[in-house]
Parts: sequence; structure tokens; C-alpha cells
Amino acid sequence: MLKDWTFGVDWRTTEECKKLLKKRREDLAGLQQRIKEAKLPVIVLIEGWGAAGKGSTIHSLIRELDPRFFRVLSVSMPTPEEKRWPFLKRHFQSIPEQGKILFLDSGWMDETVRERLRGDLSDAEYARRIESVRVFERQLAAGGYLLVKLFLHISAQSQRERIEALESDKDTAWRVGENDWRQNKNYDRTLAAFDDFMTATHAPHAPWKVIDGTLAAQAQLESADWLYQRICAALEEKPSAEQPKTDWPLLPAMPLQDIPLDKTMEEEEYQKKLKKYRKRLAELHNELYRKKVPVVIAYEGWDAAGKGGNIKRLASALDPRGYEVLPIASPTPDELHRQYLWRFWTRLPKTGHIAIFDRSWYGRVMVERLEGFCTENDWKRAYDEINEFEKELTDAGMVVLKFWVQIDSDTQLARFTERQNTPEKQWKITDEDWRNREKWDAYQVAIDEMLVKTNTQNAPWHVLESVDKRYARIKAMRLVIQAIEKALK
Amino acid sequence: MLKDWTFGVDWRTTEECKKLLKKRREDLAGLQQRIKEAKLPVIVLIEGWGAAGKGSTIHSLIRELDPRFFRVLSVSMPTPEEKRWPFLKRHFQSIPEQGKILFLDSGWMDETVRERLRGDLSDAEYARRIESVRVFERQLAAGGYLLVKLFLHISAQSQRERIEALESDKDTAWRVGENDWRQNKNYDRTLAAFDDFMTATHAPHAPWKVIDGTLAAQAQLESADWLYQRICAALEEKPSAEQPKTDWPLLPAMPLQDIPLDKTMEEEEYQKKLKKYRKRLAELHNELYRKKVPVVIAYEGWDAAGKGGNIKRLASALDPRGYEVLPIASPTPDELHRQYLWRFWTRLPKTGHIAIFDRSWYGRVMVERLEGFCTENDWKRAYDEINEFEKELTDAGMVVLKFWVQIDSDTQLARFTERQNTPEKQWKITDEDWRNREKWDAYQVAIDEMLVKTNTQNAPWHVLESVDKRYARIKAMRLVIQAIEKALK
Repeated sequence: MLKDWTFGVDWRTTEECKKLLKKRREDLAGLQQRIKEAKLPVIVLIEGWGAAGKGSTIHSLIRELDPRFFRVLSVSMPTPEEKRWPFLKRHFQSIPEQGKILFLDSGWMDETVRERLRGDLSDAEYARRIESVRVFERQLAAGGYLLVKLFLHISAQSQRERIEALESDKDTAWRVGENDWRQNKNYDRTLAAFDDFMTATHAPHAPWKVIDGTLAAQAQLESADWLYQRICAALEEKPSAEQPKTDWPLLPAMPLQDIPLDKTMEEEEYQKKLKKYRKRLAELHNELYRKKVPVVIAYEGWDAAGKGGNIKRLASALDPRGYEVLPIASPTPDELHRQYLWRFWTRLPKTGHIAIFDRSWYGRVMVERLEGFCTENDWKRAYDEINEFEKELTDAGMVVLKFWVQIDSDTQLARFTERQNTPEKQWKITDEDWRNREKWDAYQVAIDEMLVKTNTQNAPWHVLESVDKRYARIKAMRLVIQAIEKALK
Repeated sequence: MLKDWTFGVDWRTTEECKKLLKKRREDLAGLQQRIKEAKLPVIVLIEGWGAAGKGSTIHSLIRELDPRFFRVLSVSMPTPEEKRWPFLKRHFQSIPEQGKILFLDSGWMDETVRERLRGDLSDAEYARRIESVRVFERQLAAGGYLLVKLFLHISAQSQRERIEALESDKDTAWRVGENDWRQNKNYDRTLAAFDDFMTATHAPHAPWKVIDGTLAAQAQLESADWLYQRICAALEEKPSAEQPKTDWPLLPAMPLQDIPLDKTMEEEEYQKKLKKYRKRLAELHNELYRKKVPVVIAYEGWDAAGKGGNIKRLASALDPRGYEVLPIASPTPDELHRQYLWRFWTRLPKTGHIAIFDRSWYGRVMVERLEGFCTENDWKRAYDEINEFEKELTDAGMVVLKFWVQIDSDTQLARFTERQNTPEKQWKITDEDWRNREKWDAYQVAIDEMLVKTNTQNAPWHVLESVDKRYARIKAMRLVIQAIEKALK
């Protein structure tokens, strides 16, 4: 992308460019209302050489825009705190809501290339990063995001002159970072790294656009033109993405109705194991805190299957300063207006911490599928997207456990009825529970499909037979212990 | 509070305590539903000596609680990033929503006392901190929060023995921090500092409860008893707070209708000044970025007064990486369920950055007052709470500017009509605008009261006469320039 670039195709005067730019800025302002109405979220990623003019390009692009309508984010290298989460987390966290534009002054490319050049990433880690970026961009595009990626390109000589000019003025000298000189002194090596990254992340739904940064006015005009074209195209037709990877290394899954539910546990054994496992879990929690291993435990299951009590027993073994239970309710407007995994990315535990999700991202392929809260295309695509999401987590060293808390329909009926008839339990049962119960068969189909398609080796499902809640609680604790022991080895 | 404490009033056996504790834990679990129904938010702050058993006390308190219903937060000393905001920001940020309990493993007390003992706070800074804490706790109590503050107290000898015991076990040795030894070696000095802080922040709405931590079981029982009593009391009667400080150093304010609106500016002068002020603002933005001065600019004004265009001109002068425009719409459920200033605390700019609020916290005393979205007591209290809020900001070195964009009723009508009749502007006008317009007189009363009661010396109001929008834009820019110049001096 950069290696065969020829600088200096200079066919318009600065004056001409400025005139056209003024017009183009007004065109962009004119698109705002349409972007809002079409609920199109737009991410404009501006990467490029140090001192190539990223800041002034952004400044130029936003000049006529309504400030309530866009946001500019200057992305630095991750802080030590930010490094306690998977690579994509902070980038996912900042995605805009529908109808808004986010301008990024460098981002996941700058971070990755710098770390690679510094030698902080092995070849395998770098390859993994590329994969993460591809997943990120593809999922956003599939979720209706328009991704505009610009690279501001200048020659080694031009960069050197610009850095020197900045340094010679006391008002701008502080803007020159050591990375700028490092880039310039290793121009060819840096160019090769940029080129690698861009080639690997150039995709139909998120193509790179190289902008010749030699002359500021031209670069700004070209950037505005490209942004305008891309937005117009996206307004005509929602951006479409490549198909995700689908060949997941899956484990076999048993249809729910074939799972025997006759497992029980006597009170005495239960109390004995509870005590033993609590002690062991406390030790392990301590150790994973010190070794900075993060853990995600997702609970799904039928209403009244006993998720709450199961979570409570598990949590009671943990140091409360090191875990959090995250009840997942319907998405808020903020969440609804962003890619659906956003609200889970933002809730991930940091290193050494445990997050227990009481319901999870699997809502997409269960309630959202069955209630029509998303399109068929959305939930069908979600199996792969969820597998990709979980792979991001486990590849980053997170332990991921997924529990399906299983009961049969008769047990549910008995528990619902008991709740209805016990005054202090009545608040636990709502009309919605009864309505969901009527859809038992449809849910069973969806759940079976989910268990088959997302039973990956890195994040397998575990069924907790919960007709006897004691059995299910002990099984959950045992599985958590095993998974953590394995991770700590 | 601590100075006259006598340890070792030991009248119950550990066995007895454990039995009572078990019962009390069940009582606490039994309160959950009532807390939820009463929408009571609860903050349990556990402070105390290092190794006094804060963690195990929390563990004991939550044991029977539904994990979806509470959160535990272990508060460390602020990171360098967190220090880029006013002291209260990170504490305000973590307040729970209605119906939930937040347990804090130390918090604003530990932070303040440590910094004082280290010599990081001058006497004046310490006094200011105390004032911040008092404002914080009083505002929360007035907003319906129950604050339960426990201090786990142990003797110097007991602390030393505990630290040594922790150190001698390789599984717990890592838990001992240098602060624990520092406290123990300077026990008397630390005790005096704890005592000072607690005496200064002991209030009827947020009393301190000293818990004798000598025997773990007794300490846990006493903590559970106290928490239970305080919750029961709060469920009977919403906690009431002291009256806030009301003697603000106010500047005189002129009634809106007395402000002449005949100010105009010719296009030529406008363009000239716009250019000049843009340049100056860009320089100043650069300088405040380097000197790490944060700036808050709040815009309020009549519908169609020209806030949007005014903000746009101001913003166009700024480096987009260093400012953000924050449009304030109706609160989301998350926001509604917390103290009303929460959504502004969480949006404050960090050092060196500018936040432009398009509408602001003044909604409380305008739209919320007039539409009945809060009680009379709520909005009447809000003037002082807002003054306190802004004082927290300016005392932390923030520049705070407040603009009222003023037009007369006839001008509004003309602009509404023009919007209605211009196809590309129709989206800017809604039925709600017309409805609000009918309440012009009531708004005028509310606005005048607001301008009088919140026109503080540290954060004064500026009226922008906006019948001629050019005049208003230039005036806004000039005022921002003056305020920043003053702050940078």
C-alpha cells in the first residue's frame, strides 16, 4: 500500500484546494441530518506518520459540523491500567452510537505497529493482533458501522523538515515526541511495518485510503472528499461485511432433552463439599489475584432454574473485593444504539478479577431471536461473533466458563406455582415468566442451536442439572475450581 | 472519637457472636426486597487500620445477600490518571443506583488521611478536603442515600501481631503493604489523624460508628447489627440531611427583562473579530493543555436563542483533540436512579481539556422544576448544591464559565416560524418547543431566580445577548479568552 507510493502528484493549487475544501465541508455538514435519520454510526480512523498533519486534518474535517454530532478522541498508548484488559476492550469501549461520528486521532494501528517495532510483540502475538483488528472491524461493519480509515503519508525528508519546524517554535516544540524522531530515523523499517499492517487489514468493508500528506490543503481536501463519498455510499446502502470465520473447533453438544436430570445430592454430602470447595475457591481466588488471571463466568438457564442461588453459593466463596456479579437486564438506549457486544466489552473484568454474568451475550440468540428484537441476519451471525468475542478473551489469558442451568418443564411449573403461592416469593414471579414459559419449545430449539454452535474448545458450555439445586451448585463450584486450577498451572 | 476509646469490652463468647451473626445476616437478606421497593440506595464505607479486618467484615456482611443486589469496591489510592480530576470525581462516579448497596473497602477517608500523613496536603488543602467530604456526604443524604460509615479500630499491639501473622504465611504475606507498617510505627500520630478526620466528618446524616476490631466475630456482629439498624431506620424514614451552607459570595444579577437586547455587530467587524479571537483561543488552548488547566463551559438559553451556532463558532477555534461538546438530554434510567449531579460528575473534563455542556446541571432548577420532574424540596435545595458542585470544580483549579443565551419572546417566535417554514430547518423545531414557549413567563421567573442564586464569584453567569447572533458569538469568545487568560496568569 505504501511501498509503491509516489509522492508529489501535484495538480491543483492550494487556492483551488481551499475553495473545493470549503464546498466539501458544507457538503459534509449537509449530510449530518441524513446520518442521524439513517442512524448510521461512523468511525473515522486517522492514522499516519508523526507530524503528517493528523490533527489539522481532523480539525479541517469537523470545521462545519455540529459539535453535538461528533466526537474526537486522541488515542494514546494504553496506560498500565488499560493493559489489564484484552487489547480490543478500550477500542470497543469508545465506539460511537448510531447517528454520530467518532474521529480517532490514531488508534489500534498506531498501538500495534509501535509495539511491534519496539519488539514488544512476538510474531505470533502480532498475528493475533491482526486477527483481533480484523474481527473488530468486521463485527462493526456487520453491525451497521461505517469505517473510514485514512493514512496520512509523507516522505522521510518531509517528516524531518516538519519535526524540525515544530521543534524550532517554542509553542509547538512540546508536541514532538521521541516516537516522531524514532520513526524518522528508522523510516524504511517503519514504512514496512505500516505497509504490513495496512495490507493485512485492508478489507472491502474497511478499506485503507492513503492520503498524500505532502501539501496540507490537498491532503485535507482529499480526506474530506473520501469521507464524503464513503458516507454517501453508506447512506445508499448499509455497509456489508465479509462473512466471519465459521470453522470453529467445536466440542460435541448433547440435545437438552437427552440430558438426564435425575442427579441429586444429599444434604450431608452437600454441606461437606460446599465447605471444602469454598475453602479451595478462596485459595484459588487469592492465587489468581496475585497471578493476575481474569475470569469470566456466564450463567444462562431457564427461569426458576436456580441461577440466583447457584451464583450466591459460588460468590460466597470469593473475596468480595475481587469479583463482581453483573445482572444483565434489557439494554439501555445507550446500549441499544451500539453494536450489541459493546455492553459486554465494557463490563469485562480486569486482570486478577472475576466477573459473574447473570445472563449474558447469549441473549442475542435466545430472547432477542425469539422476540424479534433483532433481525434474522443479526442472530444468525451472532454465533460466530460470540465465538470470536470469547476467543479474544481466552487468547488474552482470560478463563471463560459458561453454565447452562437446566431443569425440565414440570420442575419449572412446580417452582412457579410455589412462588405464586408463597407471599415472600411472589416478587420473584411475573407475568413475563409465564409468557416465556409458553414458548418453552421454541426456546428449547434456540438453546440447542446455541449449545451446538458455541461449544468451543476454548470456552465450552457446561450443563448444570438443577432439578436438585444442591447438585447443580456443587457441580458449578467444582467446574470453576477445575478451570482455574488448569489456568494457574 | 478514637482518642478516648477503651479496647476489650468483651462480654460475649465467640460462639454466641457467631450464632447471633448468622441470625443477623438472615435479617439483612430479608431486608433486600424492602430496600429494592423503597428504592433506597445504600453506601457502606468501611474504614479502619491496616489489617483490622475490613475485608473479612465485608465478606461477613454480604454472605447471605443476593449478589445481584450489591457491589463491593476496593478503593486504592488514586492513579495518576484519576488525579487529573477533582478529588470527589472518582467517589461520586461509583455511587450506587437506587435499591442497591455499595460496600467500600476504604474510600475518601483513607485517601485523605494517608495524603495528609505523607505531607502531600497542606493544612489549607486538608481543610478543603474535609469540606469536600462534608458536601459529598450531605448531598448524598439529601438525595435519599443512606450512608453507613464504620471504622474498624484495633490497638497498636493487635495491629502489629496481625501484620506479623500475615507476613509469616506465604499465602498472605503479599497482602501486607508498606502502609500497614508505616501506620503501626506511627500509631499515635496516625490515630490522631484518623480522629481528626472522623470528628470533622461526623454528622447526623452520616455518623461514624467505631467498631472494636479486637475480636473478629464480635466486630462482624457489631457491624452487621449497626448496618441492620441503620437500614431499618432509613426504611422507616428517608434519611434527612443538614441544611447546606447558604451564604454564598454572590455577584449582583440583573432581571432578564431589564437586559437591553439591542446589541448588534456588523458582518465586517464580526469576521474580523472572529478571526482574531479564533487565533487567540487556539493559542490559549494550547497553553492550557500544557499547563493542565481544565475548563468547563456551560450553555443555557431559550430554545432558538442560538446556542448551537454559538458553540460551533467557539469550538471551531479549539484543537478537537482537547475539547468535547456534551449535549445534555433527558437522563437515562441509570442516571435517574442516582443523585442528579452524578451524570455531570462523570462527564467532567480532565486536566488540560475543555468540556462544553450544551445544557447542563441547571436543568434541575428550570425544566425539572417547571415540569414537576423533581420535588419542590429537590429544586429548592439545588441552588446550594450546584454552588457547592461548582466550588468543588473551581477549587480544584477548573475554569468554570456559564452562559445564558438571551433573546426576547418575539425573536423566538420569529425564529420558530422561520424554522417551520424552511424545509431543511423543520427538524429543528418540535411540538415540545411550542409547548415550552407557552410557559415563557414561568420559565422567566425560574431563570431569574437561578441567575440570582447561582451567580457566584467563582463561577459567575454571563448573559449573551443573542438577538444578533454575531454579537453573542463574539462576546462568548471574548469571555472565554478573558477567563482563560486570567487562569493562566
